[in-house]
Amino acid sequence: MPGSQFVLTLSCSDQPGIVATVSAFLLARGQNILDAQQFGDVETGRFFMRVVFAPTSGPASLAELRKSSGHTVAARFTMTYRLHDRHLPQRVMLLVSRFDHCLVDIIYRWRTGELAMIPTAIVANHPAEIYNGVEFADIPFHFLPVSPASKIEQEQALLDLIDRTNTNLVVLARYMRILSENLAAQLAGRCINIHHSFLPGFKGARPYHQAHARGVKLIGATAHYVTGNLDEGPIIEQDVERISHRDSPADLIRKGRDIERRVLARALRYHLEDRVILNDRKTVVFTD
Amino acid sequence: MPGSQFVLTLSCSDQPGIVATVSAFLLARGQNILDAQQFGDVETGRFFMRVVFAPTSGPASLAELRKSSGHTVAARFTMTYRLHDRHLPQRVMLLVSRFDHCLVDIIYRWRTGELAMIPTAIVANHPAEIYNGVEFADIPFHFLPVSPASKIEQEQALLDLIDRTNTNLVVLARYMRILSENLAAQLAGRCINIHHSFLPGFKGARPYHQAHARGVKLIGATAHYVTGNLDEGPIIEQDVERISHRDSPADLIRKGRDIERRVLARALRYHLEDRVILNDRKTVVFTD
Amino acid sequence: MPGSQFVLTLSCSDQPGIVATVSAFLLARGQNILDAQQFGDVETGRFFMRVVFAPTSGPASLAELRKSSGHTVAARFTMTYRLHDRHLPQRVMLLVSRFDHCLVDIIYRWRTGELAMIPTAIVANHPAEIYNGVEFADIPFHFLPVSPASKIEQEQALLDLIDRTNTNLVVLARYMRILSENLAAQLAGRCINIHHSFLPGFKGARPYHQAHARGVKLIGATAHYVTGNLDEGPIIEQDVERISHRDSPADLIRKGRDIERRVLARALRYHLEDRVILNDRKTVVFTD
Amino acid sequence: MPGSQFVLTLSCSDQPGIVATVSAFLLARGQNILDAQQFGDVETGRFFMRVVFAPTSGPASLAELRKSSGHTVAARFTMTYRLHDRHLPQRVMLLVSRFDHCLVDIIYRWRTGELAMIPTAIVANHPAEIYNGVEFADIPFHFLPVSPASKIEQEQALLDLIDRTNTNLVVLARYMRILSENLAAQLAGRCINIHHSFLPGFKGARPYHQAHARGVKLIGATAHYVTGNLDEGPIIEQDVERISHRDSPADLIRKGRDIERRVLARALRYHLEDRVILNDRKTVVFTD
Repeated sequence: MPGSQFVLTLSCSDQPGIVATVSAFLLARGQNILDAQQFGDVETGRFFMRVVFAPTSGPASLAELRKSSGHTVAARFTMTYRLHDRHLPQRVMLLVSRFDHCLVDIIYRWRTGELAMIPTAIVANHPAEIYNGVEFADIPFHFLPVSPASKIEQEQALLDLIDRTNTNLVVLARYMRILSENLAAQLAGRCINIHHSFLPGFKGARPYHQAHARGVKLIGATAHYVTGNLDEGPIIEQDVERISHRDSPADLIRKGRDIERRVLARALRYHLEDRVILNDRKTVVFTD
Repeated sequence: MPGSQFVLTLSCSDQPGIVATVSAFLLARGQNILDAQQFGDVETGRFFMRVVFAPTSGPASLAELRKSSGHTVAARFTMTYRLHDRHLPQRVMLLVSRFDHCLVDIIYRWRTGELAMIPTAIVANHPAEIYNGVEFADIPFHFLPVSPASKIEQEQALLDLIDRTNTNLVVLARYMRILSENLAAQLAGRCINIHHSFLPGFKGARPYHQAHARGVKLIGATAHYVTGNLDEGPIIEQDVERISHRDSPADLIRKGRDIERRVLARALRYHLEDRVILNDRKTVVFTD
Repeated sequence: MPGSQFVLTLSCSDQPGIVATVSAFLLARGQNILDAQQFGDVETGRFFMRVVFAPTSGPASLAELRKSSGHTVAARFTMTYRLHDRHLPQRVMLLVSRFDHCLVDIIYRWRTGELAMIPTAIVANHPAEIYNGVEFADIPFHFLPVSPASKIEQEQALLDLIDRTNTNLVVLARYMRILSENLAAQLAGRCINIHHSFLPGFKGARPYHQAHARGVKLIGATAHYVTGNLDEGPIIEQDVERISHRDSPADLIRKGRDIERRVLARALRYHLEDRVILNDRKTVVFTD
Repeated sequence: MPGSQFVLTLSCSDQPGIVATVSAFLLARGQNILDAQQFGDVETGRFFMRVVFAPTSGPASLAELRKSSGHTVAARFTMTYRLHDRHLPQRVMLLVSRFDHCLVDIIYRWRTGELAMIPTAIVANHPAEIYNGVEFADIPFHFLPVSPASKIEQEQALLDLIDRTNTNLVVLARYMRILSENLAAQLAGRCINIHHSFLPGFKGARPYHQAHARGVKLIGATAHYVTGNLDEGPIIEQDVERISHRDSPADLIRKGRDIERRVLARALRYHLEDRVILNDRKTVVFTD
């Protein structure tokens, strides 16, 4: 294993001295900055920063680093911050309904080392048999069916499972059930959904049929954090592909699968690498 | 000048024998098919075709060709059709408001031979002085200011000008006044607008500010035929470009100019080359 | 199963009457044209056509159709043509080396019905164990190792397997061994390779390292028919993605996997749907 | 005019403390960091940084700032650096041959404020008359014809003009003459060329004809710094567009014009905003 690396992400009110203070702090703790990106939002006056650093002479573990009185810096600038050890992957739960293309894609990317994460569970509102041919790779599978009557219980079971598995992030990999406002609120900032349209166009159900009916010349997909307000959460990533009058709704669904899986995979990777910081109803994404 | 070439576009109910009949008809009149594209819409049962042909032994002018009893074929299949001589460019009127990037681009493409058309007039709701530095290239400029009170008169003046100049096509090249339903109806199928968003997202005013507020990761533009239903006309062409959290509304406007001008130019070229056929609220575009 | 559908692809010297003759021929045999695309190459004087049709009152099987004296039409125009029943999928052999992303992707697309084909075999120059976690879905797996000394025998074994399995198409899904000229010649027009660069840039080995060293701002992939002339075969499909100075060769390889698999999948689908016709060293691709 | 803003770009050997030292230095001089991007090249061990800052209590002019002993910081890290006042635009000379689409586009973008620069001269190897319809907007035009025999004199005249006009950057806006090695060396890092292909594919003459002959499915353009090694200079920006078998070389040239002008405009803007730093044979581009 290569040496330790840490990622610090922070946001606070913009003011002189933030970069100087943070970089001096790290230098004094024997840490070398490997990468840093920052953004000052002139509209809101918020400042956002992502720093990747590695110990030269200083602490090489998260626990030691946390003793380094970073909280005094954070307090001085009233910062919101997160500090992660790059070698401690996040724990991710995958939710899926009938269509399994995003699920299969994420499992494949995880298996080949492209997505640094620990899958804690696959949760489906369909039984395992329908995912015939999907290689679950020893990830525990949970069948949690849901009906209007059982929704409260099912969501409670989901929350229990999230707790029990120490899940950090929930991915709705074409999970076609709308989360209750309560569940959405509890998962704020740690639940990513893939919507099969280029939002804000074609919100709601059957977006490819909507797109076909409207006669658009490009279709797209949108990965966003889930909020209580359906299809209105902060957007992480989007992409599109060209279509033509020849494409039936079935063709759009087929072409859409490719867009959905690559948009979700990118958003997931950005999140896992701490590249995404919430900026009210929007995101700051420090891409590579 | 190279030899004559004609373009036939048609639509009718789909039924056996259309291609055979049309191609036999052309062969019998001494015409050689150079290019043909067709599309059967299984949803609506409509059939669409575009044929480019040139005389070998047959008529070499539109007038002669029209005597060839093509109407009997058209009647047999209840076809809607158009027949154009490729060497007789369409007559195009350009409407513009304050932002002149689309206007300048279209004039440049026309001047270099990329757009086969005859500009009949530039019509602006601002005086010529504000287009300082724009090379109008001897195209007549008309200042037709408009206010809520004068809208009916201004639109009548516009219609008179369209008639007087034998204009075939009106291009709203970032013309920021909404046409009345009456005018839109009169120009049905011969008026193209460029909307500065990826419709159906961000209809209405200030779409780049809307896009910025929503935090989308791509912005776009849409060229469509104008109908009485604002921003709902049949879409001809769309395109997008990637943006990031760093982009202010002013950046989006700047990046958007590039998208708008290339989307409008493509849509205009498709129309001028008879590549677009209306299919109810949508279009069939036979691209090259 | 829906009713019969056939695809006819043909090429010949361009001359008047081809479309009329072909469409009259089909009409007379009780066939209705559903889709047709054509292209006349003015440089070479060659004409290319793809026609999809379905029986109304005529023959509903390939065998019957072949009795319909289509050869007299073909002879008259000295046509090269192929006629396929859309319900009889082609038989496809998949060759792979160490990297399995294209293989996994093709199997998934086949399993979900996106690629209409019958996989006849997976052939690898590595043993099955290294594809740990790949769901082979009952496709026979053959381990055919190859060394410079054993190349002739290995290729003969490959050819035998192709014959024995009635394979129509061989796909080099990141198969990293160069075919001999002899084998390439025998598979002319029925062997597709995915090269991991935007050809003709970065031919040969380690193209992502070459791209990194040159500092290009986009990387790509190319699907092409295999010929004896390495990386020079007729191109079917290409695509690219944006990269930056931050991307290491390992990042390019990761991003490249996404491009490779979607370019190969598109090329494969085009081939399976008879959308590709060879035009000397190039291809005509009638996309949907 | 808004308050002063400065841009500092630097490169040096990567080592601990650079960010801390630079940011502390700026803070101590009463400067607030508005934007900062950095990159450590693990292969070469070089570190690159771009900082945008504005005075709060410190110096508000370049002259004052230069007295702030920044050279001691630079010396300590053996930095190469540049410091620009954002309100002092660079002086740019535009070279052009017969095709004027890039020239027209740059002039338009300059006129609308999109490109912050001062055009010092338009230099052409054709007389002004052939640019009929181009609005030179009072930029001095120089006709400097060139033949093999007169090349040395012509290049000397060019250099004299560059000196006399205090030109900082030379843009080869489809200037079709190859600069001598001597001139290329003298303009190292301050001369941008647009090549009409996706390098390294199709170097040299008539790249669109080469692309057509090879049958590629995408064409592109490349903006790069000029070096003595033709078409091998560090790449700043590239882009591509999809083409098909239907596109003749003339179509590629037409589509290529759009790619060329937007790639060159982007590269030019990146350079003018000090977003590009040379990294040996490659570039680091801190995009917005």
